[in-house]
Amino acid sequence: METVSENRCFGGVQGVYRHAAQATGCDMTFGLYMPPQVERGPVPVLWYLSGLTCTHENAMVKAGAQAHAAEAGLAVVFPDTSPRGEGVADDEAYDLGQGAGFYLDATQEPWVPHYRMASYIDELAELIDRNFLTDPEAQGITGHSMGGHGAITLALANPGRYRSLSAFAPIAHPSASDWGRKQLAAYLGADEAVWARHDSCALLREAGWDGDILVDQGTDDQFIDLLQPEALAAALTGTRTPHVLRMQAGYDHSYFFIASFMADHVRWHAERLRG
Amino acid sequence: METVSENRCFGGVQGVYRHAAQATGCDMTFGLYMPPQVERGPVPVLWYLSGLTCTHENAMVKAGAQAHAAEAGLAVVFPDTSPRGEGVADDEAYDLGQGAGFYLDATQEPWVPHYRMASYIDELAELIDRNFLTDPEAQGITGHSMGGHGAITLALANPGRYRSLSAFAPIAHPSASDWGRKQLAAYLGADEAVWARHDSCALLREAGWDGDILVDQGTDDQFIDLLQPEALAAALTGTRTPHVLRMQAGYDHSYFFIASFMADHVRWHAERLRG
Repeated sequence: METVSENRCFGGVQGVYRHAAQATGCDMTFGLYMPPQVERGPVPVLWYLSGLTCTHENAMVKAGAQAHAAEAGLAVVFPDTSPRGEGVADDEAYDLGQGAGFYLDATQEPWVPHYRMASYIDELAELIDRNFLTDPEAQGITGHSMGGHGAITLALANPGRYRSLSAFAPIAHPSASDWGRKQLAAYLGADEAVWARHDSCALLREAGWDGDILVDQGTDDQFIDLLQPEALAAALTGTRTPHVLRMQAGYDHSYFFIASFMADHVRWHAERLRG
Repeated sequence: METVSENRCFGGVQGVYRHAAQATGCDMTFGLYMPPQVERGPVPVLWYLSGLTCTHENAMVKAGAQAHAAEAGLAVVFPDTSPRGEGVADDEAYDLGQGAGFYLDATQEPWVPHYRMASYIDELAELIDRNFLTDPEAQGITGHSMGGHGAITLALANPGRYRSLSAFAPIAHPSASDWGRKQLAAYLGADEAVWARHDSCALLREAGWDGDILVDQGTDDQFIDLLQPEALAAALTGTRTPHVLRMQAGYDHSYFFIASFMADHVRWHAERLRG
């Protein structure tokens, strides 16, 4: 693991690191914020999964998470959103290929050799626990848009792995959205039964979640028809899953929306991870 | 004035606007955060001047000011750092020309027709007061690096204009620094007596400041030898100017440093502007 940069931030350290990942067969870069509390022992970890076109960097510099993580004593991981580099398949569209890994393991060509982001997140967790003073038993997950999809699907598909869960404007029902059908078909093939493991609404009905979920969604989100919060609300209420879904008046899909509610999300995770 | 974008943010609105500026003779873009308190009446204004290579955008998305401004009820202005566009003189170096206006009115060719950033800040203040519900009598100013230089020099050279003042890692003594001598010579000519009005240390000794000043500076700032906080400390203490200068252990020159102490600066200004 190579250190790209380390900057002191709110009394802790915002680091950027690079490593040769087995899961994706390429170099991967990630951001990791370690809060000042690490000087007193292992800290819980909050995973922040980013959306389409993002790298590890966008949320790390624009979401304002570090201030709240420093207060709550959480580490925050900012993984990249796909494998990258020469020799890694890509597509001209912004929403398929590099920058658009959808947090799943592809089974179809040309994606199968590198597009294994679900396995990569597990590999990265092991790498972080080996190299930093983090608590492997206290892991929470959140994310935005495609990353909100990733957070909910990874948490529900891996029971016991994450103890707290939230999302900002998640792609809630990709099996029935133009942000989803194209990608699930490309990465996983035409059999829609296989897609269910990567659809938050289907997973809520089939696997369920034994904790609670916080979801924020802006009413003026320019992508709201692709995100389908109404499908998520139906699945959450229909399955009687404990949750708080907040439709926030006037907010859109930008990082200004994310930053506005980041404090609430970090607090949500801290209360559940420090308990 | 044209609206480029408006995003809801911490209950207020983060806007970006463009206008044809007389002072610089070109289109100028600026960011303006209006806090939720504007619904109850005019709000004080905090000016944030950015550093070398920045546009209106960097601090607006990376400094985390909006959260604190929303709490304190301050508007925050993020001006650009120079005139821009075709027909505007430039230099190959990152620290002269576009992106490096140094918040002064140039008197030398080829800079004189457009490089009038001191006058531009006044023009922008009038534009904002005409178009938004701001209080022209309650104006504070801060900035980072070249923008910290701008904040201190504009405040001291225009008594009564700003009621509160702070800076992050300012270029404190440009007349004696490689971040300054080249630019002051280019924009103002060889007569160093003229430079004094654009040097914080000289202005403190000649004009003084009838308020107090907050300055934060990281000990691990990679540009600290160019910034010369020791010259600023000598001028502040020598002139018995009320101030707080904090050398922050381990912090560098990045936005991670700025964000870490933004809450303190917004609070500093709010206390002085709302009084």
